[in-house]
Amino acid sequence: MSFGIKPLGARVVIKMVEAEEKTKSGIVLAGQAKEQPQIAEVIAVGPGTEEEKMEVKAGDKVVFAKYAGTEIKYEGEEYIIMGQKDILAVVK
Amino acid sequence: MSFGIKPLGARVVIKMVEAEEKTKSGIVLAGQAKEQPQIAEVIAVGPGTEEEKMEVKAGDKVVFAKYAGTEIKYEGEEYIIMGQKDILAVVK
Amino acid sequence: MSFGIKPLGARVVIKMVEAEEKTKSGIVLAGQAKEQPQIAEVIAVGPGTEEEKMEVKAGDKVVFAKYAGTEIKYEGEEYIIMGQKDILAVVK
Amino acid sequence: MSFGIKPLGARVVIKMVEAEEKTKSGIVLAGQAKEQPQIAEVIAVGPGTEEEKMEVKAGDKVVFAKYAGTEIKYEGEEYIIMGQKDILAVVK
Amino acid sequence: MSFGIKPLGARVVIKMVEAEEKTKSGIVLAGQAKEQPQIAEVIAVGPGTEEEKMEVKAGDKVVFAKYAGTEIKYEGEEYIIMGQKDILAVVK
Amino acid sequence: MSFGIKPLGARVVIKMVEAEEKTKSGIVLAGQAKEQPQIAEVIAVGPGTEEEKMEVKAGDKVVFAKYAGTEIKYEGEEYIIMGQKDILAVVK
Amino acid sequence: MSFGIKPLGARVVIKMVEAEEKTKSGIVLAGQAKEQPQIAEVIAVGPGTEEEKMEVKAGDKVVFAKYAGTEIKYEGEEYIIMGQKDILAVVK
Repeated sequence: MSFGIKPLGARVVIKMVEAEEKTKSGIVLAGQAKEQPQIAEVIAVGPGTEEEKMEVKAGDKVVFAKYAGTEIKYEGEEYIIMGQKDILAVVK
Repeated sequence: MSFGIKPLGARVVIKMVEAEEKTKSGIVLAGQAKEQPQIAEVIAVGPGTEEEKMEVKAGDKVVFAKYAGTEIKYEGEEYIIMGQKDILAVVK
Repeated sequence: MSFGIKPLGARVVIKMVEAEEKTKSGIVLAGQAKEQPQIAEVIAVGPGTEEEKMEVKAGDKVVFAKYAGTEIKYEGEEYIIMGQKDILAVVK
Repeated sequence: MSFGIKPLGARVVIKMVEAEEKTKSGIVLAGQAKEQPQIAEVIAVGPGTEEEKMEVKAGDKVVFAKYAGTEIKYEGEEYIIMGQKDILAVVK
Repeated sequence: MSFGIKPLGARVVIKMVEAEEKTKSGIVLAGQAKEQPQIAEVIAVGPGTEEEKMEVKAGDKVVFAKYAGTEIKYEGEEYIIMGQKDILAVVK
Repeated sequence: MSFGIKPLGARVVIKMVEAEEKTKSGIVLAGQAKEQPQIAEVIAVGPGTEEEKMEVKAGDKVVFAKYAGTEIKYEGEEYIIMGQKDILAVVK
Repeated sequence: MSFGIKPLGARVVIKMVEAEEKTKSGIVLAGQAKEQPQIAEVIAVGPGTEEEKMEVKAGDKVVFAKYAGTEIKYEGEEYIIMGQKDILAVVK
């Protein structure tokens, strides 16, 4: 079953990564033990635009800019839609 | 009978989706039980511009940016006219 | 007798539509019974610019952005001069 | 004797039109009986720029945006120097 | 002896014109009898840029935008360095 | 073992240089004995964009603009992700 | 021994000129006897960018915009790194 939210332009849909996964990937945000960490998995990507090709793909773990994007709830799960420009890096 | 509002440029006319429909599509906005959800159906689209082709079409269900657009009332129904840039994603 | 105000660039001259006409066209702005509605008729259009061709013509009924344009009085009638970018849609 | 102020780029020099002339041309600004009307005559125009050709010429009667331009006094007369972008329309 | 300050890009060095000269040229700024008038002589011009060719030359009398530029003192005289974009017009 | 954070676009990952290293390189920021110095080592660089090629490479010591970038913690170490535009200079 | 700070892009490293030198060059900033004068010597220049070629070279005496740049201390001396756009003029 394919994911039902298709971002427009150079936008992506991401989902926050659970705490255990974060420990495994080794990333936490400095001085933010009590804040929402900015690590997420890319769930869906838009087609990009002529000016901005997509550099991330579904499945990538990414670090993203604080306060970026719009939160939505879809089939009981929370996601964030944001521009790829707000994705800072891919975490291996 | 065709719809009587023709958006200019890369604008669209959208109409808020009723609550029952929203449940069916599975989308609600996180933490906004008492706020107006940002899910709507595209009713009419402009011709686009040289810089911005249209990516959405009439009938698409879309998520859009909060506070975007201008509300109008037409033949007893409420619509919003907004730029396609404020449409975040299409919901299948 | 031709209309005496020729807008420059991609500007237009519009005139507010009377209340009875508005009822006929079926458009009123949501929640604005006591505010000035944003429906008007295009009276004159500029030549456009290289970047922006004209999409509206004299006689079109249009919805326009609130607070846009400059009001002028010409031969006893009130008009608004505004950029075509502030015209949201044409109403059939 | 030619006028001694030569605007640079796409600027123009304009001079406010006297009250009697304004009555003749039929234009007054709405609700501004006690304010300075924005009708003027173009006195001199710059050469334009590659991006912006001149659309007005000396002698044109024009409506211009409020608060635009810089006032100067030249040989006892008051003028305003402003960018052509602040000229809204030509009045016939 | 050539002037020792060479502006970069599309900048100019100007020097305020003395009061007597101003009377001769016929220009004073409206309502500014007690303020510093914005009439000056161009002393040196930069090479211009690809986007902006120089329209003024040394010796031109110019009107310039208020609050523009940086004041410097050179060999006992005061000058202003500003971008040519802040020069409004040349006065003959 | 390669570094696990891959910056997108023209971004870089940098790591603050320890105090002893700073003394060796001879750089300290003026008047900032008690503030965090802005000297760092480049750890990873993005692919660049069409508009902005990468000028720094992993291993470069760099001076960067204050308040730039986003701090992250990865495998127990603190890093900053920032745009290359916020890197001012390379220190030999 | 070459200077160890290499600016990126169209940036320069400059060093304030001592008071005696300033007297010799004949430049002081108007009304700033007690403020830091904005005259400096260019110490190092970046490679420039496609949009902005370098117009200054090491050894040039320059006037620069107030509040521009970032101060650093290198081997006991204070320098400022700034974009060439904040250099106003070269002083001969």
